[in-house]
Amino acid sequence: MIGTGNVGAACAHYIVASGFVDDLVLIDKNEKKVKSDALDFEDAMANLPFHTNIFVNDYSQLDDTDVIISAVGNIKLQDRVVPDRFAELGFTSDAVTDVAKKIQQTKFHGCIVVISNPNDVMVSIYQKITGLPKNQVMGTGTLLDSARMKRAVGAALDVDQRSVEGYNLGEHGNSQFTAWSTVKVMDRSIKDWAQEDGLDLDKLNEDIRMGGFTVFSGKKYTNYGISTAAVKLTLAVLNDAHIELPVSNYREEYGTYLSFPAIIGRKGVIKQVQLDLPQEELDKLQYSADFIKSKLAEQTSE
Amino acid sequence: MIGTGNVGAACAHYIVASGFVDDLVLIDKNEKKVKSDALDFEDAMANLPFHTNIFVNDYSQLDDTDVIISAVGNIKLQDRVVPDRFAELGFTSDAVTDVAKKIQQTKFHGCIVVISNPNDVMVSIYQKITGLPKNQVMGTGTLLDSARMKRAVGAALDVDQRSVEGYNLGEHGNSQFTAWSTVKVMDRSIKDWAQEDGLDLDKLNEDIRMGGFTVFSGKKYTNYGISTAAVKLTLAVLNDAHIELPVSNYREEYGTYLSFPAIIGRKGVIKQVQLDLPQEELDKLQYSADFIKSKLAEQTSE
Amino acid sequence: MIGTGNVGAACAHYIVASGFVDDLVLIDKNEKKVKSDALDFEDAMANLPFHTNIFVNDYSQLDDTDVIISAVGNIKLQDRVVPDRFAELGFTSDAVTDVAKKIQQTKFHGCIVVISNPNDVMVSIYQKITGLPKNQVMGTGTLLDSARMKRAVGAALDVDQRSVEGYNLGEHGNSQFTAWSTVKVMDRSIKDWAQEDGLDLDKLNEDIRMGGFTVFSGKKYTNYGISTAAVKLTLAVLNDAHIELPVSNYREEYGTYLSFPAIIGRKGVIKQVQLDLPQEELDKLQYSADFIKSKLAEQTSE
Amino acid sequence: MIGTGNVGAACAHYIVASGFVDDLVLIDKNEKKVKSDALDFEDAMANLPFHTNIFVNDYSQLDDTDVIISAVGNIKLQDRVVPDRFAELGFTSDAVTDVAKKIQQTKFHGCIVVISNPNDVMVSIYQKITGLPKNQVMGTGTLLDSARMKRAVGAALDVDQRSVEGYNLGEHGNSQFTAWSTVKVMDRSIKDWAQEDGLDLDKLNEDIRMGGFTVFSGKKYTNYGISTAAVKLTLAVLNDAHIELPVSNYREEYGTYLSFPAIIGRKGVIKQVQLDLPQEELDKLQYSADFIKSKLAEQTSE
Repeated sequence: MIGTGNVGAACAHYIVASGFVDDLVLIDKNEKKVKSDALDFEDAMANLPFHTNIFVNDYSQLDDTDVIISAVGNIKLQDRVVPDRFAELGFTSDAVTDVAKKIQQTKFHGCIVVISNPNDVMVSIYQKITGLPKNQVMGTGTLLDSARMKRAVGAALDVDQRSVEGYNLGEHGNSQFTAWSTVKVMDRSIKDWAQEDGLDLDKLNEDIRMGGFTVFSGKKYTNYGISTAAVKLTLAVLNDAHIELPVSNYREEYGTYLSFPAIIGRKGVIKQVQLDLPQEELDKLQYSADFIKSKLAEQTSE
Repeated sequence: MIGTGNVGAACAHYIVASGFVDDLVLIDKNEKKVKSDALDFEDAMANLPFHTNIFVNDYSQLDDTDVIISAVGNIKLQDRVVPDRFAELGFTSDAVTDVAKKIQQTKFHGCIVVISNPNDVMVSIYQKITGLPKNQVMGTGTLLDSARMKRAVGAALDVDQRSVEGYNLGEHGNSQFTAWSTVKVMDRSIKDWAQEDGLDLDKLNEDIRMGGFTVFSGKKYTNYGISTAAVKLTLAVLNDAHIELPVSNYREEYGTYLSFPAIIGRKGVIKQVQLDLPQEELDKLQYSADFIKSKLAEQTSE
Repeated sequence: MIGTGNVGAACAHYIVASGFVDDLVLIDKNEKKVKSDALDFEDAMANLPFHTNIFVNDYSQLDDTDVIISAVGNIKLQDRVVPDRFAELGFTSDAVTDVAKKIQQTKFHGCIVVISNPNDVMVSIYQKITGLPKNQVMGTGTLLDSARMKRAVGAALDVDQRSVEGYNLGEHGNSQFTAWSTVKVMDRSIKDWAQEDGLDLDKLNEDIRMGGFTVFSGKKYTNYGISTAAVKLTLAVLNDAHIELPVSNYREEYGTYLSFPAIIGRKGVIKQVQLDLPQEELDKLQYSADFIKSKLAEQTSE
Repeated sequence: MIGTGNVGAACAHYIVASGFVDDLVLIDKNEKKVKSDALDFEDAMANLPFHTNIFVNDYSQLDDTDVIISAVGNIKLQDRVVPDRFAELGFTSDAVTDVAKKIQQTKFHGCIVVISNPNDVMVSIYQKITGLPKNQVMGTGTLLDSARMKRAVGAALDVDQRSVEGYNLGEHGNSQFTAWSTVKVMDRSIKDWAQEDGLDLDKLNEDIRMGGFTVFSGKKYTNYGISTAAVKLTLAVLNDAHIELPVSNYREEYGTYLSFPAIIGRKGVIKQVQLDLPQEELDKLQYSADFIKSKLAEQTSE
């Protein structure tokens, strides 16, 4: 776990409390904070069922680590009126570049799960600098946005989030969108629910897109939804689950990382899913891809 | 869960991520923060294995709730050079009094697990105002200090925290102490380890007592150790586990709540443990009890 | 848990090992066996993280029990060349009638999850004798067959079972069928996989239908798949999850219990799902419904 | 998992249901049975939260396996009036020898956790044939007997099993015994409970020793207690927990494997515990050690 701010620490808490891993390496530039969290986890251990070995700020441990989660970032840069994940771009890309170089100097050959924002750009930076195969570097991307969509749709139709199917696609940012053509509840397309039961898709759309910022405005960060998504993706890699998840992965046809469903296993993205999207959604996806590429180009040219 | 600051939110996270309860009521005066956390948990749900129903700021739900956890407090009052849990006393006792009155107006008849500090005083206030039987109101007390002791001793002898036996007793505060006469590792008393292997008890003592403040100084709060202790105690009640835990419970012979091992079940403290302590430790306990009583008297007389 | 043969005991094991419930009542006519299992679970407890209170053969405990799981049956009656769940009908319906009458004499007012076979008939008997509302009595039905379908389809396409959507419907028996029109993998209908990638649906069909008997022939019973399905359904009730599951529930339009997706919560079936099935599948469902009704009629008239 | 009879299958069930491992290799001579169990686990997967990869009868997978659990045995040989784990000796030692030779031909270099009975003899055979360091081969030994002791003592004093400290030592068989000098409840020695509260140690002794056979007589095998103990030991190895457990480990001073507390980590036994036992218990231990050695000598000389 690289970066133990609100998100990284919540990931680590979930992992330690559940006994998901045998060895957990916590890395953060703020040595006081990361040592404090490590000791706090150690203080929890006597009252937890499972043992986790915790290491602090030791890059050498990464040589045979299976998965690195990057939660590097500075959410304080987000404290503004108009929310925008690109507010973090400059700071985070420097931090991520620094971390990626350090990873590159180890023998690490596993998968990287990137939470850092703007997500798709940061995934790209990690992949380029570490030189790992593209399929082994992934972003949590719209796995969180999809969960938010499922929450909103589930609430509207009074069903559990796990009984809502479908994906949010594209950039994990303002240009992401719900691919409504893929959303189904009780074996019925969301468009049928909208047409026949008056479900208001525009309202849902806004709910979903603003979800993170609603959470954000209440506590100045979001951490539980995103950390759960990151651990879900991490477990899919560790367990070699071959499970389908919408995450940021490199799509050749768009020439960029962006969120799109993929089959995840021990080698990261082991298969890419093809969706039969209507033109309207394809356009949104193209727009989102172009946006990510332009931001990445800006970043790289700096 | 009443109070969803750093500690309450970490408790709730652990509970939701583990699916420990069916219904979770989150209550906090900071409505924006508690709604933000609730939504954040909802955003995690699609990627979690178990469903938890989350309610916000609804005291009426407490009528048939099994356990209330109180994490009411204001850790910011702690940000000072000399750490002291009594720094929170005035603020928290007002807040706790307010909450306890609201609980008293419901039909709640379960157990209260108090995390709020100064712990033993707050437990007392909850019990008095709610009028619940003394055994149904408990504080996490030195369950956390004992875990810290186990962490420190375990680290010194290279064994897991769960392989260290023994208790910290008294006030959950500066007058708490490790009852070294009860501490055993690998079936050998800690005094033997000290005498024969040069284990430095004074150093350990200091490590343990300062544990929380070391964590605190790194992030300006502590949450993982304490929330895990609170959930452990809560599960003991829910499961009717009849498990022995050192928690703040009312001891007739000291005329106050203070931390001492007890057998915990559905009705809270179902049996009190008698320890055969040496005079030195009895003196410390008496001192600690007197300290709690004096603080409680001050508080009540205000 | 009523009936602690191979299936009931595997359910109980899963529940105890996971700490899913606080109190577990084990009931079986074979007192030596049920006491043996209870003691065996107690012998596991010291090495398990969570405490479960276990009660044996005590119907009075059912007064305020949330869920009863019935695994009453005699799998030995199944040991024959041509597999048929109706081989158990006579024996099990007597046993189930007996158990249902005993439940009826308690104040039980929760949900019953029926595993006993033939499933749909047994669910019906439980509901009639206990007089509980129809929605509070359910059978695991094709939740298991659907899981087998997902296993077979997942294996064919190299994806995790959880990434296969769709249902098996109808009788939990020889007339059950996969509603292929509902099956989707990687957002693509199974018919597309069949037509474009040569996936052999007939072979899959046979795999799925014979799944249980393949397991059965290897050990003369099946228990892990079925017990996991039963616990999943039970947790949906306990957690009030509002999750969609294909289980045996009473469908007015067919005048019988049969397996069809439903939304499950604390009151059992809280909403019934409508599927837009093609005529071919509707015919199969009608055939399956008629078959169940004829068997139930035979049974009732005896 | 080598050997998937009642015990091995219960271990595998617990492991799969809890998602404890990423890859699980099931090996059994009864190919129909092991394939049936594997398929049954696969049928459970769609309704389980975590993915486990299951392999059947593939010794090549052991090359980089972390832990092998051996549950090879034939409990049917136990069906006799006077219970005796040595009834299985001839059959199991042949089977274990065969398995150990196969392991020896792989590149396996992890730990072996032996459940097979007579336990201490079988551990010895595994160690000799595989040539693994003595500390990497362990038996569940009296970890189960200790759990049974804790169950019996806990029941007598109305406390949870986890609140009873102490060990059963020696052979996992008729010569094992509770080292009462090590048993403590509520910080009080069991001898005090006996002297002052009339706790009947002889009766407890008999309860504990006969525990397994009571379970056994009710269902002709025991599986939940033993499999839970085996998984606990396995997790201690996987997590590198450095936790203290009474298991069968090689004690130089007795010249044999026998059960005695040890600190368990990734390399198996990483430290041996020294107990300060009274002469009476030392005599029992010596007797138990001599008995194991004589049985091993018989076995080896055959």
